Amino acid sequence: MEFSSKLLEKAVNEMAQLPGIGKRTALRLVLHLLKQPKERTSFLSQALTTMREEVQYCSSCHNISDTALCAICANPKREHQLVCVVEDIRDVMAIENTGQFRGIYHVLGGKISPIDGVGPSQLNISSLVEKVKLGGVEEIIFALSSTMEGDTTNFYIYKQIADSGILTSTIARGISVGDELEYADEVTLGRSIVQRVPFEKSLRG
Amino acid sequence: MEFSSKLLEKAVNEMAQLPGIGKRTALRLVLHLLKQPKERTSFLSQALTTMREEVQYCSSCHNISDTALCAICANPKREHQLVCVVEDIRDVMAIENTGQFRGIYHVLGGKISPIDGVGPSQLNISSLVEKVKLGGVEEIIFALSSTMEGDTTNFYIYKQIADSGILTSTIARGISVGDELEYADEVTLGRSIVQRVPFEKSLRG
Repeated sequence: MEFSSKLLEKAVNEMAQLPGIGKRTALRLVLHLLKQPKERTSFLSQALTTMREEVQYCSSCHNISDTALCAICANPKREHQLVCVVEDIRDVMAIENTGQFRGIYHVLGGKISPIDGVGPSQLNISSLVEKVKLGGVEEIIFALSSTMEGDTTNFYIYKQIADSGILTSTIARGISVGDELEYADEVTLGRSIVQRVPFEKSLRG
Repeated sequence: MEFSSKLLEKAVNEMAQLPGIGKRTALRLVLHLLKQPKERTSFLSQALTTMREEVQYCSSCHNISDTALCAICANPKREHQLVCVVEDIRDVMAIENTGQFRGIYHVLGGKISPIDGVGPSQLNISSLVEKVKLGGVEEIIFALSSTMEGDTTNFYIYKQIADSGILTSTIARGISVGDELEYADEVTLGRSIVQRVPFEKSLRG
């Protein structure tokens, strides 16, 4: 791609470093900004810079927060003995959205993935183990994605806290509510039969 | 979408105002920036702001340029009597990329579109008419997209310069090189038959 302006080229190249944004899309976005009032661009730049500079993470669960302790951890009505372990803050948002969970979270910040060079020390695992050791936690729910990396991470944490004697669980895997059985993948369908739940219990949800 | 941080929310909302970027994508992009070193974000913000503040347009063809006259208009080896009219700078880049055009461009900055509130006065049309009146232009090539708006714009300009007696042409429409006839749309296929070219001429390309 040949640019008629170095300024334009630099803006496009920076934009194209974002994941999933190719050079063509970056050019389209930048040309859109050029057609908008200058304030549009300065608002965007300012919002990004301020966020990156001033963002804080909850000292307890590592969720993104504007306060030292996030709103969930600071809420006395949440069940602080029930900790849901998730990969990143999008998972917190998704679970909060269901309105079905009254416990607190622990955000790992990723999954153990040797291929991507992510080891246990780069994740917020030690603070979770510490929290368990201090007492007060009764159950850990693993809510990572069911991939090789997710399973590895679950197992790594499980080994560290196994002798504390607290309950550990993982979120249920099965056929999505409303899905047709014939279109489900076999692993999910198989697991949903092996891990079937008593009928009376299914009526509650 | 409920955010645990106002800073995060603001950054996501600004990002989501870009065309084709929804809230979910915006969140993914912003979380990516959070995982990268702070410089990544400040480089991006700076590049966008500097570009938006300092960008210039060629005084002759309205292409984006870092100089008062763009490199194409300033090049004495280009055929200045041959002017290709395009919608925006992406079209200039696409045509330059072919290496087949030795004339100069005129960037309109859009198409006449009453629905979107774009009239002739918002486009760089008067400067093109002026250029033709001043003399020196021998042929105008219309290279707008073949939509209702493109055709309207072509015709509007054509009427303004018709009595100057210069040549006007549009880029050829037809079956893409390498495409199978059976998959072509009928309008294109029909036009490619009506506007067939002498065989000897087709050998040149």
